[in-house]
Amino acid sequence: MSLEREEPNYFGAGPALLPTPVLQQAAKDLLNYENIGLGAGEISHRSKAGASIIDETKESLKSLLNIPDTHEVFFLQGGGTTGFSSVAANLTAAFVKKTGKPGTPYYVIDGTWSKKSYEEAERMGVHPKVAVNSKEVDGKFGTIPPTDKWNIPENLEDVSYVYYCDNETVNGVEFRQFPFEKFPGVEIVADMSSNFLSKPVDVSKYGLIFAGAQKNVGIAGITIYIIKKSLLDQATPDTLKDMGLSVVPIAFDYPTAVKNDSAYNTIPTFTVHIVNLVLKHLIAKGGLLKQEEENIKKAESVYAVLDKYPNVYNLPVEKSARSRMNVVFTIKDGSLDSEFLEGAEKQKLSGLKGHRSVGGMRASLYNAVTLKSTQLLCEYIENFAQKHQ
Amino acid sequence: MSLEREEPNYFGAGPALLPTPVLQQAAKDLLNYENIGLGAGEISHRSKAGASIIDETKESLKSLLNIPDTHEVFFLQGGGTTGFSSVAANLTAAFVKKTGKPGTPYYVIDGTWSKKSYEEAERMGVHPKVAVNSKEVDGKFGTIPPTDKWNIPENLEDVSYVYYCDNETVNGVEFRQFPFEKFPGVEIVADMSSNFLSKPVDVSKYGLIFAGAQKNVGIAGITIYIIKKSLLDQATPDTLKDMGLSVVPIAFDYPTAVKNDSAYNTIPTFTVHIVNLVLKHLIAKGGLLKQEEENIKKAESVYAVLDKYPNVYNLPVEKSARSRMNVVFTIKDGSLDSEFLEGAEKQKLSGLKGHRSVGGMRASLYNAVTLKSTQLLCEYIENFAQKHQ
Repeated sequence: MSLEREEPNYFGAGPALLPTPVLQQAAKDLLNYENIGLGAGEISHRSKAGASIIDETKESLKSLLNIPDTHEVFFLQGGGTTGFSSVAANLTAAFVKKTGKPGTPYYVIDGTWSKKSYEEAERMGVHPKVAVNSKEVDGKFGTIPPTDKWNIPENLEDVSYVYYCDNETVNGVEFRQFPFEKFPGVEIVADMSSNFLSKPVDVSKYGLIFAGAQKNVGIAGITIYIIKKSLLDQATPDTLKDMGLSVVPIAFDYPTAVKNDSAYNTIPTFTVHIVNLVLKHLIAKGGLLKQEEENIKKAESVYAVLDKYPNVYNLPVEKSARSRMNVVFTIKDGSLDSEFLEGAEKQKLSGLKGHRSVGGMRASLYNAVTLKSTQLLCEYIENFAQKHQ
Repeated sequence: MSLEREEPNYFGAGPALLPTPVLQQAAKDLLNYENIGLGAGEISHRSKAGASIIDETKESLKSLLNIPDTHEVFFLQGGGTTGFSSVAANLTAAFVKKTGKPGTPYYVIDGTWSKKSYEEAERMGVHPKVAVNSKEVDGKFGTIPPTDKWNIPENLEDVSYVYYCDNETVNGVEFRQFPFEKFPGVEIVADMSSNFLSKPVDVSKYGLIFAGAQKNVGIAGITIYIIKKSLLDQATPDTLKDMGLSVVPIAFDYPTAVKNDSAYNTIPTFTVHIVNLVLKHLIAKGGLLKQEEENIKKAESVYAVLDKYPNVYNLPVEKSARSRMNVVFTIKDGSLDSEFLEGAEKQKLSGLKGHRSVGGMRASLYNAVTLKSTQLLCEYIENFAQKHQ
């Protein structure tokens, strides 16, 4: 059986492409991991080999991201969506422990996912408030309104946390800076599911960072959390129940996860192993600064060719908020959409259709998308434009 | 790169062995699924290929288990442990919708996992009661006390559900019959994580069956649920909050999962694909009756050789409650434990150490453990006994 493949030119928004050498190694390890005679999905998470997969992955992450001793790394199942729920429950439980009150979280809404997260916090009963909703300020998701338009009280005492999504995959909006210096002492929570490991991050500024693996880090099924250790000091379930707050399932209780080294219950070892292989691959490639350079180059080349043909392409996102991961654009003449997509498929460029909720096109340029794939895409975009301008 | 391996003789309690041909196919599909040029972990769960993996898996399950139209199949992340939490929340929400009251769930505790599930229901705040705890009745986990010793009220009106674990991996206890005929109209919830698909099951008798995949069905990271459709009619989060009940994270809300065909959020497609391959393998082998026959043969042969040497081996579980999946035994002379394990390893028989909480030995005989492996184990047990009796 062959483990070769033609390099795909795939621009899907996620689950995303993974480096072929990573998948080849993972495929081999599925049958026989490090010559122990069992596959990486068959070993116990409590065996020596299983525990070392978790440990190595954690250590690689710490070194790649320069994670300070003030923070801890752990892994959970459930994807970013369960992050929405578990953030609301855990950060509120930490605030209750610290202040005796549930407090109020503030959500920066700049696209589909931060909006969903806000709605889930509401559903979970932690009474979140909207710090800002860019659609309400600017009429559409496609900007990041300046902090002076945010509705966060001057007195920060009751603010349990401020939440934002660092990169909105559906809308193609990404934070270029960390705009939270104005809120000293407030815990900042970031959903980095779709741009995690695409660039260096100063972890010390965050209370919590979480990221589903299936963009830059692995296949679906594992979510990475980086938490400030002080937030692991949380009110008990009984205290929360007495205050009318929801208790989160124990597998999503952050202190339990950390205390049990991400193995309170059975962790998907094979899925974590793929993350481990991706991290090693990234380290061998030269680390996050190097990866960021490549990502900037890729994104700039695609935006440049789209900007060159304003009669053909429309870019809905404000320049300062353009995502390097997800280039969102539409073809002005919407009747050409299927021609664009079919023509691309013919040249083996796939995954370019925009999210069903917004339509148009989206070229996702995650870490595993090569410069070569990006160049082929740029050429296609250019040829299409010249034919139709 | 080779995808061959020597057939392992592995008796670990889970994550468990998978059939080698399944892993070989999965390994290939990790790079290129059905010649679409992308791996099964890289495709979108909303793509045609991704959705068909979910659908096929569901359909195979329905046909293998003869699931009636009254029931629905769905998949969630989070393992059996999140099943403990989500059962408490969802079944209570269904009872609230039906009766206006939260009701009381009753737990049959016959080992480590049902005990954990009871404790989680307590932690989640649904005030469970113990129907029976075999350790309290018989001084140890190792029996299933008859229903007349169970503490379930004659008037069943307030009983939201009755919960049990069909096979206790740690303690080696398995239900041989369905003992709930005495409780008509009550919803029966079964954790079948460790014996799912080891035998036919009459699904119509259950309100809910759930099973983590990592024993007979796949690798860790996906949990299978089979629910009676009427239990999908549940009280709203607002109603639950008003009653002081916890709201479960939306990714574990059963009605949401079913409504979205198990893809409310990103489902781990590759992990589901492995389940699909295992199901196809089972169907090709002749289905569940055939598999049960084989499992009976394997379990009987191991118990027989252990029973043959009562001076050497001790079997703590009552004969009528012996698990076919997990044969738990101790060596009477505890000082021989490491000799037993090391000798086994020398003959390439591995994974025989008992659970850390009970010690001794445990031979797990899941579906993928072959008759040949079992025979080698029996010979080893016999030789060891003859040497030490």
